[in-house]
Formats: sequence, C-alpha cells, structure tokens
Amino acid sequence: MYVLVMTEISSDDLKAAGAQVFADDRAHVFHSWSAQGAITPLPIAGAEGSYFWDYEGNRYLDFSSQLVNTNIGHQHPKVVAAIQEQAGKLCTIAPSFANDVRGEAARLIAELAPGDLNYVFFTNGGAEAVENAVRMARLHTGRTKVLSTYRSYHGSTSTAISLTGDPRRWANDAVGQSTGGAVHFFGPHLYRSHFHATTEAEECERALLHLEQTIQYEGPATVAAIILETIVGTAGVLMPPAGYLAGVRALCDKYGIVYIADEVMAGFARSGAWFAVDHWGVTPDLITFAKGSNSGYVPVGGVIISEKIRETFKDRVYPGGLTYSGHPLACASIVATINAMKEEGVIENAARLGEEVFGPALREIAAKHASVGEVRGVGAFWALDLVRSKETREMLVPYNASGADAAPMNELAAAMKARGVWPFVNFNRLHVVPPCTISEADARKGLAALDEALDVVDVYAN
Amino acid sequence: MYVLVMTEISSDDLKAAGAQVFADDRAHVFHSWSAQGAITPLPIAGAEGSYFWDYEGNRYLDFSSQLVNTNIGHQHPKVVAAIQEQAGKLCTIAPSFANDVRGEAARLIAELAPGDLNYVFFTNGGAEAVENAVRMARLHTGRTKVLSTYRSYHGSTSTAISLTGDPRRWANDAVGQSTGGAVHFFGPHLYRSHFHATTEAEECERALLHLEQTIQYEGPATVAAIILETIVGTAGVLMPPAGYLAGVRALCDKYGIVYIADEVMAGFARSGAWFAVDHWGVTPDLITFAKGSNSGYVPVGGVIISEKIRETFKDRVYPGGLTYSGHPLACASIVATINAMKEEGVIENAARLGEEVFGPALREIAAKHASVGEVRGVGAFWALDLVRSKETREMLVPYNASGADAAPMNELAAAMKARGVWPFVNFNRLHVVPPCTISEADARKGLAALDEALDVVDVYAN
Repeated sequence: MYVLVMTEISSDDLKAAGAQVFADDRAHVFHSWSAQGAITPLPIAGAEGSYFWDYEGNRYLDFSSQLVNTNIGHQHPKVVAAIQEQAGKLCTIAPSFANDVRGEAARLIAELAPGDLNYVFFTNGGAEAVENAVRMARLHTGRTKVLSTYRSYHGSTSTAISLTGDPRRWANDAVGQSTGGAVHFFGPHLYRSHFHATTEAEECERALLHLEQTIQYEGPATVAAIILETIVGTAGVLMPPAGYLAGVRALCDKYGIVYIADEVMAGFARSGAWFAVDHWGVTPDLITFAKGSNSGYVPVGGVIISEKIRETFKDRVYPGGLTYSGHPLACASIVATINAMKEEGVIENAARLGEEVFGPALREIAAKHASVGEVRGVGAFWALDLVRSKETREMLVPYNASGADAAPMNELAAAMKARGVWPFVNFNRLHVVPPCTISEADARKGLAALDEALDVVDVYAN
Repeated sequence: MYVLVMTEISSDDLKAAGAQVFADDRAHVFHSWSAQGAITPLPIAGAEGSYFWDYEGNRYLDFSSQLVNTNIGHQHPKVVAAIQEQAGKLCTIAPSFANDVRGEAARLIAELAPGDLNYVFFTNGGAEAVENAVRMARLHTGRTKVLSTYRSYHGSTSTAISLTGDPRRWANDAVGQSTGGAVHFFGPHLYRSHFHATTEAEECERALLHLEQTIQYEGPATVAAIILETIVGTAGVLMPPAGYLAGVRALCDKYGIVYIADEVMAGFARSGAWFAVDHWGVTPDLITFAKGSNSGYVPVGGVIISEKIRETFKDRVYPGGLTYSGHPLACASIVATINAMKEEGVIENAARLGEEVFGPALREIAAKHASVGEVRGVGAFWALDLVRSKETREMLVPYNASGADAAPMNELAAAMKARGVWPFVNFNRLHVVPPCTISEADARKGLAALDEALDVVDVYAN
C-alpha cells in the first residue's frame, strides 16, 4: 500500500493532500483529552503491519500500537478480508435477533475465557464494557459500591471515569460527571510502594491487607465489586505480584463481592496470553475486553460473564443495552482476529518476544541509562519508569506533568520520532507496546532507537 | 443477495444453519434489555433495502428500521462499497492523528448542522454522545444539573440512563448506576397533557411555564444543560408544539443554560430533514447524533459543537475521550451516507412520504379502528397511540406493561409479522419507522398489513 501510493501520486500532491487533511481536522474535528487550540494532529496517510506513515514521506515503526489496540498489527489481510466480506453480506442487525457471526464470536471468546465465563455481552468499546460489568455486579449483589485502584484507567463514560484512578477523573469529579459509589484504594506497586514494603512477597501481603481493611471500613455488605486491570495499563504496566490476584479472588469470595477483571488493554495477546489472568490461573466473575479483540478495526468491546451472574438475569430483565450490541461487522472482525491469532501463533510470538527480546534488551538498556529506574512487563507490554535518580527514584517529570514540566518526556518522544519509532508516553514513563505480531528484527530496530533516544533524557538524571 | 443464497443452499441446509445460529446465540450471547431465559431470538440470514429475512424462508418488510437506525435501508451499495474500500485502506488510527475521512465526515456534518455548530466530537454511539455533550455543558457552565423530560430515552451508560425518562432508568437508579444531577420535568404532549391543556398553543405555553418554574426552583445557577429529543423517539414520537423549542432556546439564553438537542434517533433523514430542529428553525448549542448518520453500518455517534463551547476547550483540556473517536471505517460510512442521501434525495423521499402517504394513510386507519387514539409524526417517523377507548384515552396496555398485561400489543406484533411486516412496538404504541429510502409501494404494502393487523386489537377497545 505504501509503495503503491508513492508511485501513483507525486510527493507534492501527497503533501497537498496532507495539508487538506490537516485543514479539515483543524476546522471541524474535536479531539479527545486535548486543549483544542494547542494540538497539531499529524495527518496519517496509511499503515501496514507494524508501520504507519504520514503525507511527508515519514514512515514510523509503531511502538504504541496506536492506543495499545492494534495487537494484530495494521491492516491484517485476514481481518480486512473478513470485514469486507461481512460488509457485503450484512453490516448491521438489531441486538434482539440472532446472527451467525455474533454467535460465533461469542462462542470463540467463551472458549478462550477461563472457568465458566460462558456468555458475552457485546458493547461498542471498553468504557461501555466497564459500565455494563459494574451494572451487572450491582444488580447481582444488590450493593452499590465499587472498589478500584489509584493508578488505573477504566474509560471515559460516567461510571468508567469515576472508577478511573488517574488525573483524567479529576475534572469529571469536579462537575458531577462521575457517579457515586466509587471507592479507590492502593494496588501493589513495589517500585513505588505505598506499604513501605521491600520485597514482592511483602508488597503482596500488605496490599491484600490494605484491600481487606478498605472492604471492612467501607462495610462488606455495601461493596458490589472490585474492578482491577489485571496488568495495569496506561497507568504504568504494573504487574501484580505473585499471589495478589488469587488473594483478591479469595477476598471477593469471602465477602460476596464480584471480581471484575478489566482486560480491555491486557487481553487478546498483549501480555503473551489470551487473557492476562491466565498467567496467574485466576478466574474472575466478569472480564471486560475491547482493543485487542479485533485490534479496533471496528469499534467493539464487551463483558464475558460467568454462569452465576448470567443466572441472575435469566428471569429478570437486564436493564442495559445498546443499538449496536453484537454488531455483525465487529463480530466478524473478532472471529477473524481470533482465528488469525491461533493460525499465526500471535500469542506465542508476543510471549517469546517478551521473554527473549523485550525483557533482556530493556533490562540491558536500563543498566546503561541513568534515567531508567525500572523495567516492567511481559509479552508485548512493557514500561520504562524514568527517574531523576536511580537511588531516590524521583520521577523524571512529576505525576500529571504538563507544559514545561513535561519537557524531558516531550524531548524523548521527539528523539524517538526522529529515529522513525512512534512512542507511547505517559507522565514519567515510556511504554513499549508494539503490535503483538511484530518481527524480532523490527523489535530490535525499535529498541535500538529507544536506546539512542534515552541519551536525551539521561542529562536530567544522575 | 437473497436470491443468491436461495439458489446456492437448499432449504434444509438453510434451516440447519439457522438452528446452529440459534444454538450459538442461546449458549453464548447475552442480550440487551432482556431476561436471558425468556427470549427466543430470531436468526436473521440477510437483508437488503427495506427487507430482511430469516433461515426459514420468511421475508419481512422492515417497519422498524431495526432500532430506528437503518435510515438508508439495509446494505446500501454505496455505503457498503465505502466501508469495503476504507477497510482495504485504513481500518483504524488513534484519535490524536488527523485522518482524511475523519476530517471529511466532520466537515460534511458541520456543513449540514444549523448555525455555528462547526465541530464534531466522534463517539461510538448515541449514549457516549450524550455522555460527552453533558460533560461539555457542565465544564462550559461550571454547573452540574441537567434537565431532561419524563418520556425520553438518552442511552444506557450512566449519565445517559440517569437522564432517560422511561422505566429503563428505574433499575439503574435503584443500585446507584445513575449519576447525580439529573432533574426530570414534563415535556409537552397534548394528547396526554400534564398541564390540563386543550389546544396546542395552550400546551406549549404551559409546558414552557412548567420548565421555567422547574429551572427557578432548582436554582438557575445550578443548571448546566437542558437535553431534549427534538422529536421524542422511543417514548412516543412526540412532536413539539409550534414555538416550544424556540421557547426552550429563549429560556436557555435567559439563564445561561446549554441547550442540547438529542437527535440520535430524529436526525439524518428520519424526520424528513437533516436535523429535526430544522423544522422549527432552532439552533441548539450541542447536537448529539448516531443511528441515521451511517445507518449503524459501523458503530458511531457524536456531538456537534458550537463555536462558543469549542472555545471553552481551546486552551483547556477536554477531559474525555475514547480509543475509537473518529474511527476511519465509521467516518467513511458517514461520508458515503451523507453523499448518497444527497444524491438520491433521501431527505425529500422521507418528507414526501410523510406528507403524502404515512400521514394521510395513518389518519385514515385511525378513523377506521377503535383502538387508535392518535396518530403523530412526520417524515418516516410515526406513532399510533393505541387505546381502550378513544373517549377516555385509556392506554391499550398500561405504561411499562409486561407479561400478560402486554398481551394485546404482543398479538398486534404477531399479526404484523404474520403479514410479513416487522413492527416497532413500545408499551401501548406501534411506531411506523421504516427506512427513509422506502418506496411508496412498500410503504403502502406495510400500511395495508398494519390496517389488517389492527383488527386484532380493536376487540379490546370500544
């Protein structure tokens, strides 16, 4: 596709087309999470596999997977073909009907999900998946409170943003856009322990104690659910210590609380497993998914539901729904994605790259650079925690930094882009989250660029 | 497509395929707004234009447009081709970038929208559009309360369901799934007036007085927005009396309140206009859209934003967003839909059918049948309000009827299906909401079936 475009259209015509795209955008598009006058969105001309390119002839290795969603890479031919075929057959049908790909997608997901999570409620994205998982938990238990962690992101609709534990919630709290009933607690994070722990086992034990105390002081009979990103995503690729998720499962069982695993970012190959909970052999009551399930080729998300919770809504109306639930185009792309991931060993590729390439290479990079405090991750899901000092662990830029405060991270991002690698940056962290289909050669190419780019921020560290 | 399938596959094979679709559905799909054990979803094999069909050889004229979303009919060739072409080019790209079809869709929508509503924030559907419109209004005003009407539907996410004025909200209110800040008032509805009015002018005047009193007693400085379905959809195809929307606009101006027009169902040809507000020459501050904008071929929705409100977020971060905002596949289908609607005169077709076919024919039907209390609507957007008695106006089935109470409406629906017409039924109402592309011959065919079917419920009326 890239070569085709370059041979058909002159570079000047391409640049003019890009200018028109930019002009339309600035005149009419309102962007997510942005001050509208402060952004200069880069016009993108195309994408394929682990790469995308602009109208100026610049090609980028996608170390962001966009928003950590193109797990199968850009324009995967099997998924594209499935969308095109389904579009020719049946684009949409109301959720009250049965539909072949809707049922097939649900069956394939249920087969992959742990335990007796046998039912799927399809939504249009991750936020709506969280909304509905929480609604199911509240109605199942008859309780209203939901516990979630600081350092988390669960989406932008009202219930989802109220559960989110990052600064994107604040402005919503301030004007009543959040819902009631959200209670935040601290999750385990040894590198910046809230529990003054020094070992993973200690962090795990103390984090579970903190969670149980939070439940007890909130009143166990008022808590409907605990929602956790299995591996915390945008807030830092935080890996749960061994035993933590099993401990959460046990607390949920003890107090009759629904355990919701938010796998919108962690699921479908990102962690080198179908679901991140697979790494710890834990079965939640509900799993939310979106991004990787079809790489976002068609907007979709959903909730995978246990027999027990489905039973609650056997004779009782479930009071939620949406026009595009189980959308045929979306479901066809899920079926094609799951089949392609199986056929092409995408899970195995991500797992192997994590163990043999990203893990070792990032740890080497960390040892070389004064600015890298910690390396965390698994599969194709990694973060570098950047610091002013390895000793004090002071963050390279402050939490929620913006403007001049964020300058070092902006310089790092620019240095990576200049080297043809598109980064994912959040606060003081650089995440390494390429497509799970990335080749080892491209992975090493991106890591080499990252290694060079880090020199730019080493000057801020000692 | 229909003929093709029938010649390639034997009727027995088709039935077996349908049985498999049904089995997958019952084993794995969790359905919207349903008691999961009480439903028998009909497997749908295909659709084209104003028709869809099952695996048993039954073909239905779609008088529901699914959930009033396939305004351009099923499988419109130009929209299908645009999706297929865009799928081959670029399925997804992160919302932070500029993209050709994203900008083009936003520009086309802005050109159609009234006044200076020049910006578009894309979401995945109508509920998220409402979530974001309300968030914008709250941040723009610094106030939290939002006024909406009883008899309304705004979506199923937390803010959207809390603003909804139909029974689907109740179970959500009961477990804290709704947000705070929602205040409900009564909208104008002369046939069942809450204001003891006897003329449209009187209903309008009293409804505006009621709204202003509500604002005054809530405290004008606490009210961020009034959100209104321009023509109330699922809750009854309620047409605002002449002057009402202008009165709402004036109250919003007087008290510094943001006027949000929810056109998720009413917009994009449904009412025989691009936007339903066009009928009354009113310019809201924000318009929400979804369904008709691309007939739901790809999940999408959005908010159209005035210059004034966009200005609020020029230097200030807008605290909302989503991974699939401005999704290329969705935007390509919007561009194709708008162009096809222009080229093929879809707006004009809906307007003309409303004036010359649906309006006159439904009024004739109403005069013949004891069970029809009132006919309301415009364009391809009509409702029959069914009654036990034209004199007392007692509803044919009670508000929120289910089970045995709903039997007459279920009989009516069955009678229409038996005549090959798929109905849209809500409580005591039958809505006539076919694709806006329907031919006059098909419209008259459906109306004839409706005329016959109503005999079934006339026995309950006197």
